[in-house]
Amino acid sequence: MTSAKISIEASGAFMETLSLKPFGSGTLDGLTFTVKDNIDIGGSKTSYGSPSWCEHSPAAAHNALCVDQLLAAGAACVGKVVADEFTYSLEGENQFYGTPLNAKAPERLPGGSSSGSASSVACGLADFSIGTDSGGSLRVPASFCGVWGMRPSLNRISEAGVLPFMPSVSTVGALAGDFDALDRAMRVLLRSGARETAELKRIVLLEDAFELADRPVREAARREVKRMSKRAGVELESVAFFDITGREMGLSACNESALRDLQTAEFQSAVGNWIEAHEPELGLAFSMAYGNVKAFDRRRIMGSIDLCERLFEGIGRFLQPGTVVCFPTTPTVSPLKGALNTMDAIKDFYARTMAVTSFSGVGRLPEISAPLLSACGCPVGLSLAAAHYQDEFLLGVVRETLLEG
Amino acid sequence: MTSAKISIEASGAFMETLSLKPFGSGTLDGLTFTVKDNIDIGGSKTSYGSPSWCEHSPAAAHNALCVDQLLAAGAACVGKVVADEFTYSLEGENQFYGTPLNAKAPERLPGGSSSGSASSVACGLADFSIGTDSGGSLRVPASFCGVWGMRPSLNRISEAGVLPFMPSVSTVGALAGDFDALDRAMRVLLRSGARETAELKRIVLLEDAFELADRPVREAARREVKRMSKRAGVELESVAFFDITGREMGLSACNESALRDLQTAEFQSAVGNWIEAHEPELGLAFSMAYGNVKAFDRRRIMGSIDLCERLFEGIGRFLQPGTVVCFPTTPTVSPLKGALNTMDAIKDFYARTMAVTSFSGVGRLPEISAPLLSACGCPVGLSLAAAHYQDEFLLGVVRETLLEG
Repeated sequence: MTSAKISIEASGAFMETLSLKPFGSGTLDGLTFTVKDNIDIGGSKTSYGSPSWCEHSPAAAHNALCVDQLLAAGAACVGKVVADEFTYSLEGENQFYGTPLNAKAPERLPGGSSSGSASSVACGLADFSIGTDSGGSLRVPASFCGVWGMRPSLNRISEAGVLPFMPSVSTVGALAGDFDALDRAMRVLLRSGARETAELKRIVLLEDAFELADRPVREAARREVKRMSKRAGVELESVAFFDITGREMGLSACNESALRDLQTAEFQSAVGNWIEAHEPELGLAFSMAYGNVKAFDRRRIMGSIDLCERLFEGIGRFLQPGTVVCFPTTPTVSPLKGALNTMDAIKDFYARTMAVTSFSGVGRLPEISAPLLSACGCPVGLSLAAAHYQDEFLLGVVRETLLEG
Repeated sequence: MTSAKISIEASGAFMETLSLKPFGSGTLDGLTFTVKDNIDIGGSKTSYGSPSWCEHSPAAAHNALCVDQLLAAGAACVGKVVADEFTYSLEGENQFYGTPLNAKAPERLPGGSSSGSASSVACGLADFSIGTDSGGSLRVPASFCGVWGMRPSLNRISEAGVLPFMPSVSTVGALAGDFDALDRAMRVLLRSGARETAELKRIVLLEDAFELADRPVREAARREVKRMSKRAGVELESVAFFDITGREMGLSACNESALRDLQTAEFQSAVGNWIEAHEPELGLAFSMAYGNVKAFDRRRIMGSIDLCERLFEGIGRFLQPGTVVCFPTTPTVSPLKGALNTMDAIKDFYARTMAVTSFSGVGRLPEISAPLLSACGCPVGLSLAAAHYQDEFLLGVVRETLLEG
């Protein structure tokens, strides 16, 4: 078990401390974990980062299936941790439940919406944490807090007992302080068994994501990818998003013309119906974001969702087993608290960040964010993505090519 | 548009008649459809087949995404139709909302849980209907009512705005009175575009499903599969489930030792939590079924869900693009009303039916039930299944090999 460096109170990450003992023994013996506040734990309320949702919801009778998987494999659950309001943000601030500490950059945002998950592992208060990722909610806090994170392939891990969000992109995944804990937790959740994996044959640098990144992030990522290619003895290729998909559009357009509309329409159906019927108390930041959801005209969704399907097909044709695609997890280090204080700043942050995260989103790909980069003295993640359902291959590539001796 | 043969009242299929006009024009111009009562329609309540659920739920603000897809492509929605209570049954009786008419076998059950969907198209009151299928809820009523039905590959169609059920097996799909309407509706929902498909190379008869079937069903299915093989000019192979998966288990064990536990655990998490917190009024049949859900020990789920993953892998290795697997959709024709009146009769019905439906469930496969068979004067379906995501290939095979010139 990781030894705590920062107190639970100082972390600001916990909704509730728990001590759920494992009910089985296995590959997670001795490890502790926390659970994001949109995943059910029997006997607790799941608040979805919203006091109004919490008030309207009875305590769960059962754990989510993913929680039971971890308890069965020997891990102990030590708490339920803060999420952004309705998990609809990448910033990691919650007006009602506070901002979990970014332990490696305390004056900066932790990133969200799995903010408490990243904070609790970065503070040494759990070996790993389970959260969810639809538009970057695991990858962004992993990058900003300097911890390991994995968003698996879409539909590899059961969502039973996880609050509904955006079914075409939502995944359950994990964050951890070291790769070994991430690897062990993910293989239990993925039910990996002895699944055979491909050999690493091709390392691709995703040009669009590098172009979207701030220069220090870009350079740090480029150095690490080159090192990786050398270590693996596989030549590095540089490829643009339109070369991958065969369609005349870049990664920013993928986000803005395709994936974002699908996400908005799905959030309207899954959560907007509830909000409009219950008129809950909403935080200021969420209210502003929800204004866009409310104004969204669903009748213009059809082009976007067809395009998502075509992009998925194109990425699937390009990304054969044996290929990994590399890019900075986020185009920036974490913003200073208070820096996202103008509409322009907010728009730029979301437009660039979600362009980069849209690659695995639209491709339904597994992506691991490795806490190997540093820019301007702050952590930032290097992401590796692989073909849909090549989760175990991706875990193997990280172990063999990114970890030192 | 299909001309109505039976009145709305006589069908017993409708919760509510509607006249939602299309808001776009496309391949569904002129077609009408109904919507199962677990799929949101803006302005209506979604009851989940339960008066208590209905009472606790506000009207939906938005249509489910799948409903908007159909309206955008030119179809008009004419009603919301009855589902079994919490969609947790294959029989098609709802103690609160009645039993929709099985137009071709009026003294028999329509099958469920998409009972109103099958009834409304069999009665000629809509060209097609959308419903959901987790353990057979589209395929069973298609077979019993003698209509076309398709359960798509898992995760091809958005579930946004569909009530949560069993995320590892739940799908949105369609039923229709003729293949053309089914094909057009499914291609819109699947966002098929110009997806290329494989050539038919291999026709496999799934032995386990034939052995589970009543003799008249088995013989009718065998004759039709032989005819299909001849018409396609592709030799028929006969294969057992354990040859497909490479594991020493039959299809009944697949259901009983693997898929059923996953389904039960997911239903506990998705709906059981709500039931236990709200103590709703429950129908007698559902109460009995729910007793098993309540007694289920989640701690014994791990072997089952690992096994589901291994079976999925095994089926995926066997079922290359170009292969179809054929079997009777249900092992029996529809039971007479009142015939499932002993525990033994109920157990036998579910054990055999869900063994057959578990093939596509655990394999995450697309399956089309074709209303081409007749046994003892009643309709029964012939199913064709193909590899995960080979939905368009499967639609093409049906058109080319099952339809008369």
